[in-house]
Amino acid sequence: MTSVHLDLGHASYDILIGSNLLADVSPIVRLLPLPKVAVVTNVTVAKLYLAPLQAALEAQGVSVLPICLPDGEAYKTWETLNQIMDQLLASRCERKTTLIALGGGVIGDMTGFAAAIYQRGVPFIQVPTTLLAQVDSSVGGKTAINHPLGKNMIGAFYQPRLVLADLATLHSLPTREYAAGLAEVIKYGLIDDPEFFVWLEQNMGRLMARDTTALAYAVERSCRNKARIVIADEREEGQRALLNLGHTFGHAIEAGLGYGTWLHGEAVAVGMLLAARASHLLGQLSEADVARISRLLQAAGLPVEAPTLGFERWLDLMAQDKKVEAGRIRFVLLRAMSQAYVTHLDTAQLRQLLS
Amino acid sequence: MTSVHLDLGHASYDILIGSNLLADVSPIVRLLPLPKVAVVTNVTVAKLYLAPLQAALEAQGVSVLPICLPDGEAYKTWETLNQIMDQLLASRCERKTTLIALGGGVIGDMTGFAAAIYQRGVPFIQVPTTLLAQVDSSVGGKTAINHPLGKNMIGAFYQPRLVLADLATLHSLPTREYAAGLAEVIKYGLIDDPEFFVWLEQNMGRLMARDTTALAYAVERSCRNKARIVIADEREEGQRALLNLGHTFGHAIEAGLGYGTWLHGEAVAVGMLLAARASHLLGQLSEADVARISRLLQAAGLPVEAPTLGFERWLDLMAQDKKVEAGRIRFVLLRAMSQAYVTHLDTAQLRQLLS
Ligand SMILES: NC(=O)c1ccc[n+]([C@@H]2O[C@H](COP(=O)([O-])OP(=O)(O)OC[C@H]3O[C@@H](n4cnc5c(N)ncnc54)[C@H](O)[C@@H]3O)[C@@H](O)[C@H]2O)c1
Ligand SMILES: NC(=O)c1ccc[n+]([C@@H]2O[C@H](COP(=O)([O-])OP(=O)(O)OC[C@H]3O[C@@H](n4cnc5c(N)ncnc54)[C@H](O)[C@@H]3O)[C@@H](O)[C@H]2O)c1
Ligand SMILES: [Zn+2]
Ligand SMILES: [Zn+2]
Repeated sequence: MTSVHLDLGHASYDILIGSNLLADVSPIVRLLPLPKVAVVTNVTVAKLYLAPLQAALEAQGVSVLPICLPDGEAYKTWETLNQIMDQLLASRCERKTTLIALGGGVIGDMTGFAAAIYQRGVPFIQVPTTLLAQVDSSVGGKTAINHPLGKNMIGAFYQPRLVLADLATLHSLPTREYAAGLAEVIKYGLIDDPEFFVWLEQNMGRLMARDTTALAYAVERSCRNKARIVIADEREEGQRALLNLGHTFGHAIEAGLGYGTWLHGEAVAVGMLLAARASHLLGQLSEADVARISRLLQAAGLPVEAPTLGFERWLDLMAQDKKVEAGRIRFVLLRAMSQAYVTHLDTAQLRQLLS
Repeated sequence: MTSVHLDLGHASYDILIGSNLLADVSPIVRLLPLPKVAVVTNVTVAKLYLAPLQAALEAQGVSVLPICLPDGEAYKTWETLNQIMDQLLASRCERKTTLIALGGGVIGDMTGFAAAIYQRGVPFIQVPTTLLAQVDSSVGGKTAINHPLGKNMIGAFYQPRLVLADLATLHSLPTREYAAGLAEVIKYGLIDDPEFFVWLEQNMGRLMARDTTALAYAVERSCRNKARIVIADEREEGQRALLNLGHTFGHAIEAGLGYGTWLHGEAVAVGMLLAARASHLLGQLSEADVARISRLLQAAGLPVEAPTLGFERWLDLMAQDKKVEAGRIRFVLLRAMSQAYVTHLDTAQLRQLLS
């Protein structure tokens, strides 16, 4: 087991990474202010991991309220959030009841937001079970739900007290979901970790085989990268925006095709390639570097062709994204390989890129 | 004009108190990160104060999105909150759009919560127009909406950047609403400000006549009292609980009769008297002191008789309140006049008190 410590001053917590961590719940139990938790999960994950987690907690005298939600990004909504609230209130959960998110990013984002607003905030623990959640969504305290007019439009910054990333859970992950997680892993290499990018080029085969040692290294290094950026800028007022590499394009793809058609990571993969192409258009990245990025994404089983949305629709979708300032759309591009920076693109540049 | 400064380290803001403050919006405009605001109000308050505020802001080059909600505690819900979100998103409000709450505690609580969660947090300014909102709900950063199973069950701690309490707006307030605000004013005297309590006994006549000088003093002293307690304990982990004097009983009355039947302040008035009686039962407060409190409440036009709910219903309603810890119900009682403290009452004591 390795651990990454995230110290934000007002909040400080560990990300524990290792295989079969769920077999020992004592790191969770140690943190509970009251021996009472609500485990929020979905029907898919519940079948795989709820019973053992619940039994292990109960064996240590913790009372467990399981809250089982439908599965899918389409359910990351007010209505589902309300189901969590209803069940917490119906069971009279108090301010010291801890919410545990057991699942992927959808469950993590929704449970974190529920923890942020239930009785104005209750303790919260993340048990991410997808690669994307382990390397990205469970770390850093961003929580949210979607709105018909935009993804993650309603939410809070709310830090967990612990993240428990059990690599063993990744073995049951569908291939597409696993690849989607690799997109965010590759993102860290592209933002500012050239050494990691090269490591990924050399070890993508092992990662695709879900080799535990390679996975442990990739998850830890990803978490360290994210933790460093989050510590520098918790509220996304500056540097944290770099984590959105590929995301302005990516969110437009997700929304444009209808949430759930493309996976978040798949959309981000194409988004990163578009960011690389834009950087090439600006004369900052060579054709060879763009090709290198494209090759790594393909090796990870990720798409590299943007869907056809039509230019006006692209613009419209991107303008709806949170990454808008004084009407100009913000993008993360590459000044060079593994040197991401924040900038704005104008309509003419976007037209050249997207058509 | 007087001002009370609230310094919470991570957040720090002024409460400006005076007559006709709305005539000069420069303290608002100075704080805006972008010249764009959404003014959230309700149909009643809009008729009285929206047009001049909007005109004054627009005259200073600020673009204003008015969001007008239905009036009433019954609308402090998910559904109404969603209307705010819908309108903010439909108008493509960005992270630097400031939300201004123009109205009483219902509008303030809901707008503050909307500001806390819209795009994970946007700037927020309070323009309280009821006495209760000026002396209580606009100060301290508690925001919330109600849930069918309990009042203020969903919310956030989220501080405004400015509170602008215009005493002139209180002249249009209905008598019952004004009295309800006085209940919270009296509360500060009872918690730990004996000098203020005596001042209130001596000046209730002037306050009932809405004399501006008396009002300015009462609002400022109330805000100072609340600010001191909030600064000591922003997240209600200790001392802040004292502000709940009368509220465990009060919330039970509000919920038991159906929200809106009794006003919050009316329920709190009776709740404070019940707390005083409980303190008397415990031998801490003389019969004469209980009578003194009752007299002051009556002089303020407040009820002093508890409604008939039935003991089991009382218990059930109070157990639902947020003020529950490890199953025991927490109460704020009086150790002596103007010496509030937190304690727990058992069922036998409650039965004696409530029947
Ligand atoms: N908060 C953040 O900082 C942040 C960052 C990135 C993404 N996100 C959010 O994360 C979400 C995407 O997360 P995701 O990719 O984990 O999707 P997801 O949560 O929908 O999980 C993907 C699928 O895998 C299933 N699943 C989960 N764990 C499994 C396991 N161990 N074995 C088998 N199946 C399993 C899920 O039930 C689901 O069907 C998006 O909503 C995105 O907005 C948030
Ligand atoms: N956040 C906190 O710390 C806190 C503290 C106390 C109470 N509260 C909340 O505050 C709410 C009660 O607030 P309230 O008593 O202000 O009720 P309210 O907001 O419902 O206002 C009372 C009535 O007066 C009207 N009104 C407002 N200003 C007016 C004016 N200037 N002239 C004429 N009419 C006017 C309103 O439209 C409404 O009909 C409750 O929901 C309670 O939970 C919050
Ligand atoms: Zn992402
Ligand atoms: Zn109150």
